[in-house]
Amino acid sequence: METELLRDYGFGWDQLAEILGHACAVAITKVYPLSSLGKHQPTVLVICGPGHNGCVGLVCARYLHLFDYIPTVFRPTRSRDALQQNLTVQCEKMDLPSLSYLPTEVQLVNDAYNLVVDAVLGSEAEPTDVSETLTSVLHVLRSVKVPIVSLDIPSGWEHEDSVDHINPSLLISLMTPKTCAHTFSGHHFLAGRFLPYDIQKKYQLNLPKFTGTECLVQL
Amino acid sequence: METELLRDYGFGWDQLAEILGHACAVAITKVYPLSSLGKHQPTVLVICGPGHNGCVGLVCARYLHLFDYIPTVFRPTRSRDALQQNLTVQCEKMDLPSLSYLPTEVQLVNDAYNLVVDAVLGSEAEPTDVSETLTSVLHVLRSVKVPIVSLDIPSGWEHEDSVDHINPSLLISLMTPKTCAHTFSGHHFLAGRFLPYDIQKKYQLNLPKFTGTECLVQL
Repeated sequence: METELLRDYGFGWDQLAEILGHACAVAITKVYPLSSLGKHQPTVLVICGPGHNGCVGLVCARYLHLFDYIPTVFRPTRSRDALQQNLTVQCEKMDLPSLSYLPTEVQLVNDAYNLVVDAVLGSEAEPTDVSETLTSVLHVLRSVKVPIVSLDIPSGWEHEDSVDHINPSLLISLMTPKTCAHTFSGHHFLAGRFLPYDIQKKYQLNLPKFTGTECLVQL
Repeated sequence: METELLRDYGFGWDQLAEILGHACAVAITKVYPLSSLGKHQPTVLVICGPGHNGCVGLVCARYLHLFDYIPTVFRPTRSRDALQQNLTVQCEKMDLPSLSYLPTEVQLVNDAYNLVVDAVLGSEAEPTDVSETLTSVLHVLRSVKVPIVSLDIPSGWEHEDSVDHINPSLLISLMTPKTCAHTFSGHHFLAGRFLPYDIQKKYQLNLPKFTGTECLVQL
């Protein structure tokens, strides 16, 4: 479906990442408005993996900054992807702080941030993508006590047999809910209003209708 | 300023066109909601020039379609710009109708459309860009009776000494209001929330503050 959007419809991943990352930030403002955050400052840790999911996370971080949150970006692995590099420059030049490593002491994360955004692994990730570095990030995500916001797929849900999953409070499905989302019981939004009708029909997506100028539907 | 955004901040024109075109469509829904349109169908004619302004127009048309308007696209001249070609494909594949020529009989435009979006010439246009084809389009725009929505700069305002200007009802300034906007007295919005603070400061833009998750400020 993604291939079709890019090849036949002339969409670019930079367009899609921009639209989806914006919608993810808007979803966060709906479920966790600034006024609801308990800590002194509206801090959010955004963990961005090396793939497309990470790109959406970087855009989301930029919009959170525009919406007066204080996002800190953490990229566990370097990515050679030009889009990811450009999106990182945008965050850096807009003075978003970034972490060079993730504290293994989970309490430090709990103390410093109101929320953690999990943009580590998306639907395109293969089990082989999960390097040692990412495994240790997933370990931290499994232990944090602050709410986790997962983009598209809670990282690891489709790639591990272990029941020892991360447990997000908010899931934002990108373009279409993935199979694993059926068992999710927290706040759930769908982002990606751009999906052409013909593609929705071809893949029998039966998506709910977006209303007004909303970029999200609550599921 | 645009050069700086692209070179130093790593923004791409496809990102900017997406953000700006979306905001323009949202502005149109605010000033001309579906329920306010007098004609039987919520038709809008979107005229897209060959440059960046036309790209923003194409994105705006795509979002108007998503927001349940019925936009028709007219591109008076061919553009070799890859972005413009991709954005055109997106509109075509999403079944937006397009005109192959603009009726010279203005009454036909008045009868068929509730609004005309003028994305013909933007701030990057030089007087020499105004070909014979575009001149005839501007002639039609000067005569139509339905409201005109201009993107960034009402086409021709910065390039003609003539007082015989087009007269838009809604102006959507992109990133920053241009000089000619000072004399504009209709509905006026600013789009382009992404502008980094350092750039706003460097160019002493004194832009108004966007609130909440709004992509627009009314001026």
